[in-house]
Amino acid sequence: MIDCGEGTQFRLQHFKISHFKIEYIFISHLHGDHILGLPGLINSMNINGRRKKLTIWSPLGLEEMIDKIFEVSGSHIDFEIVFHIINTEKPEKIFDDNHIEIHSFPLDHRMPASGFKFIEKGRLRNIDSSMISQYNLSINQIKAAKFGNDIEFPDGTVITNKDITLPPKKLRSYAYCSDTKYNDNIANYVRNVDLLYHESTYLDHLKDKARERFHSTASDAALIAKKANAGKLLLGHFSSRYGDLSGFISEAKQHFENVELGLDGNKFSVNINHDENEF
Amino acid sequence: MIDCGEGTQFRLQHFKISHFKIEYIFISHLHGDHILGLPGLINSMNINGRRKKLTIWSPLGLEEMIDKIFEVSGSHIDFEIVFHIINTEKPEKIFDDNHIEIHSFPLDHRMPASGFKFIEKGRLRNIDSSMISQYNLSINQIKAAKFGNDIEFPDGTVITNKDITLPPKKLRSYAYCSDTKYNDNIANYVRNVDLLYHESTYLDHLKDKARERFHSTASDAALIAKKANAGKLLLGHFSSRYGDLSGFISEAKQHFENVELGLDGNKFSVNINHDENEF
Repeated sequence: MIDCGEGTQFRLQHFKISHFKIEYIFISHLHGDHILGLPGLINSMNINGRRKKLTIWSPLGLEEMIDKIFEVSGSHIDFEIVFHIINTEKPEKIFDDNHIEIHSFPLDHRMPASGFKFIEKGRLRNIDSSMISQYNLSINQIKAAKFGNDIEFPDGTVITNKDITLPPKKLRSYAYCSDTKYNDNIANYVRNVDLLYHESTYLDHLKDKARERFHSTASDAALIAKKANAGKLLLGHFSSRYGDLSGFISEAKQHFENVELGLDGNKFSVNINHDENEF
Repeated sequence: MIDCGEGTQFRLQHFKISHFKIEYIFISHLHGDHILGLPGLINSMNINGRRKKLTIWSPLGLEEMIDKIFEVSGSHIDFEIVFHIINTEKPEKIFDDNHIEIHSFPLDHRMPASGFKFIEKGRLRNIDSSMISQYNLSINQIKAAKFGNDIEFPDGTVITNKDITLPPKKLRSYAYCSDTKYNDNIANYVRNVDLLYHESTYLDHLKDKARERFHSTASDAALIAKKANAGKLLLGHFSSRYGDLSGFISEAKQHFENVELGLDGNKFSVNINHDENEF
C-alpha cells in the first residue's frame, strides 16, 4: 500500500480488501492526509489478531509518532512493525526480491517527500524447447541457460545463450508521485514506466498557487508523463474546490493523450507499454 | 463534540456540519476509536483558516500526542488549542456558563475514562407581571425576586418570593457513557437525565466477554437507565460482529422501555422528562 490517509481502513472494508493482505506500506511524506489512517489501520490489524510482520518505509519521524499514539492509548501491538527510513535526498533501491524491485526518489514538496517506482523483476530467459532435443540438454544445462549462461559441452563445443533461449517476458512498471511541484528530475526517475500516477492538485488558472504550495497542475503532471515517455498517466490529489474534474483531463491532454482520473475505488491494470530492455 | 473517532471530519462534511461551529471537544478516553479523527479534524480546521480558539477536555496524554503528530508533519496550527485534563477518578464540574454546566464522571473501562453530563443551566425565576403593578416593584426588587429572594418593603412588609414569581422553565439534560462496563455508580452520576447515551458493545450471550473487555451489554445499559430514572436511552458502540442490531432493542426493553439505537447520522431531541428540581 502506498500512503495511508485518514479513513483508509474504512475504504479497505468498503472495497472488501482484507488488511491481512498488506505486508508493505510505503509512505511518501508525513503530511496528515498521507499518514493519519495508519494508526487506526494498525489498531484494527491488532484487534483482528494480526501476527504477521508489517514493514513500513517512510521519511524520518513516523515511528516516533506511531509509538506516541499507542503509548497514550495504552495499547500493545501484538505483531512486529519494521520501520525503514527513506533517504529523501537521492534515489535509492529500497526493496528487491524475486518478483519486484522498488525504488524511492526525491519529490519536490514543502517537506521531505519521496516518490516510488515498482518494477516487475526480470524473469528468467525462456528456453527454446526445440533446442532441448536438438542438443540433448540436461536439466542443469537448461537451468544454466535460463539464467543466461552459454552451454559448454565436454567436447569443447559452446552454444551461445541467445541461440537456445528466448528473452524473458517484458516487465511492468508503475510509479507514484505525490505530493510534489513540477520538477524535471522526476521525469528522469520515472522514465518509461507503464503507468504513472502524478498528483495534480490544481488546474492551470491556479498554477502560481501550485508553485507556491509545492503542488502540481494537470499540465505539470502531463508534461512529466510526456518527458518520461510514460505509457499512461493517472491524475489525483485534486483540490476539494473542484466539483467538476473534467478540466483535469482536458488540460492534461494538451500535453499527454493517455490520461485518466484516479478516483476512489477505480482499478487500473498496468499494461506493458515500454520497449523491452528500456530499464 | 464528544469523542472524535477516525473519519469524523468526513462525517461532518457528509452531514453538512461546519467544523467552525465546534468550540468544545470532550474526549472520554484515549483509545484509538475515540481520538484518531482529532488530528485530521484539527488539520482541516487549520487549512480552512480557523482562527477561533478550540478547547478540548480529555484524560492526560492527548496534548502530547497531538503535539507529536503536528511536529513530525511539520505543520503549524494557526489557532489556539486549550487542553484541559480531566480527573478520571472522581466526578467534577468541568464547565459552567450562563447556558449550561458540564460534569465529567468516572467510567469503568480498561484505561482511565470519563462520561459527561450536560445540564441546561437553571434560568432565573419568572416574575408574575401582575405583581409588578400591584406592589409597585422597582427594577432592583424585580431582579432580586428573579433570583429567588423575598421582598422587604421600608415599612417592614415582606412578600415571599413564591407569591410574586413563577418557577423557571424546566432544564434539559444529557449524559454520555462510553466506554464502560456495568457499574452501579454510573446510575448515580446520571440520575434523572432526560437522555442517556450508554454504550452496549455486546448482547447478553457475550456478557462474560463484555465484563472481561470492560464493555457493556444492552441489558447493562438498560439497567443503568432504569436505576438512574433516565427519560430515554440511546444505545451505541455496537461490536462489528452484529449485522442485525434488533437484538439490542429487544434485550434492552426487558429492563427499560424507552430505548433507541444511536445510529450514524440520527438526530435526537432532548425532551424534558424529569420533574422540576430533581437536579
